[in-house]
Amino acid sequence: MQRESIELTNMCMVCNGSQVLVQDRKDPRWPGITFPGGHVEPGESLADAVIREVREETGLIISDPRLCGLKDWCTDQGRYVVLFYRAERFSGSLQSSEEGEVWWEELDKLSSLNLARDMGDMLRVFLEEDISEFFYRPMGEEWINELR
Amino acid sequence: MQRESIELTNMCMVCNGSQVLVQDRKDPRWPGITFPGGHVEPGESLADAVIREVREETGLIISDPRLCGLKDWCTDQGRYVVLFYRAERFSGSLQSSEEGEVWWEELDKLSSLNLARDMGDMLRVFLEEDISEFFYRPMGEEWINELR
Repeated sequence: MQRESIELTNMCMVCNGSQVLVQDRKDPRWPGITFPGGHVEPGESLADAVIREVREETGLIISDPRLCGLKDWCTDQGRYVVLFYRAERFSGSLQSSEEGEVWWEELDKLSSLNLARDMGDMLRVFLEEDISEFFYRPMGEEWINELR
Repeated sequence: MQRESIELTNMCMVCNGSQVLVQDRKDPRWPGITFPGGHVEPGESLADAVIREVREETGLIISDPRLCGLKDWCTDQGRYVVLFYRAERFSGSLQSSEEGEVWWEELDKLSSLNLARDMGDMLRVFLEEDISEFFYRPMGEEWINELR
């Protein structure tokens, strides 16, 4: 049995026609425009976790989260995993949270916004069917963004 | 920071036209016909892990593993996660391992074989685009197979 200490999180691209739901994240460790998401709770199903996080941060209740890839990296403390989802069906009214303002934005305008660090590469995992993983690969003192 | 103790594994459906690569797993804890796969090593990228496991158990070197869903459940010891991949491009020669005999099988004949427990529900996650997760949900003393 091989176990790892893993910090398990999610992020969801909620789509409404040509628009996607963005969040201007206030967290100073990773500020900028990204998609809503957060931590998976112990014992929680991964689908329940992304539905809960989107509801808490946007007011919307998504009904069809689909896994479309993930991002991960490893440190001395263990692995960090962000599960990426897409959702197109939702109910409820848009409501920002303390995590950051949320609004609908044209998908093709995203690249002109103040995106969070590496959000451009993350977008490729959300959008390109043949990319499943964004891995930070250690190379000496650096980290390489590897898309697979 | 919320960390979980997670046993991180993978399973891959390698496709060749109408056929898929199956393995008759010898492990007495979970015997029967399934797809090749195994454990992710600490520090290893998830794509590297599934490529390595398929190579070790089948002799084939897949080049395009795509994440198509996952299976997970939680116990007192933590979470168990199986990442599900599909691959259609490969090189090398088929070679069974100590884990079990491997061979090509018509996908539409799978259900008539001696499948491993719950492999039927797992197949749905591999094959149906709108299913991303197979979660064992605890219900009293029982576990319910939940497909989402």
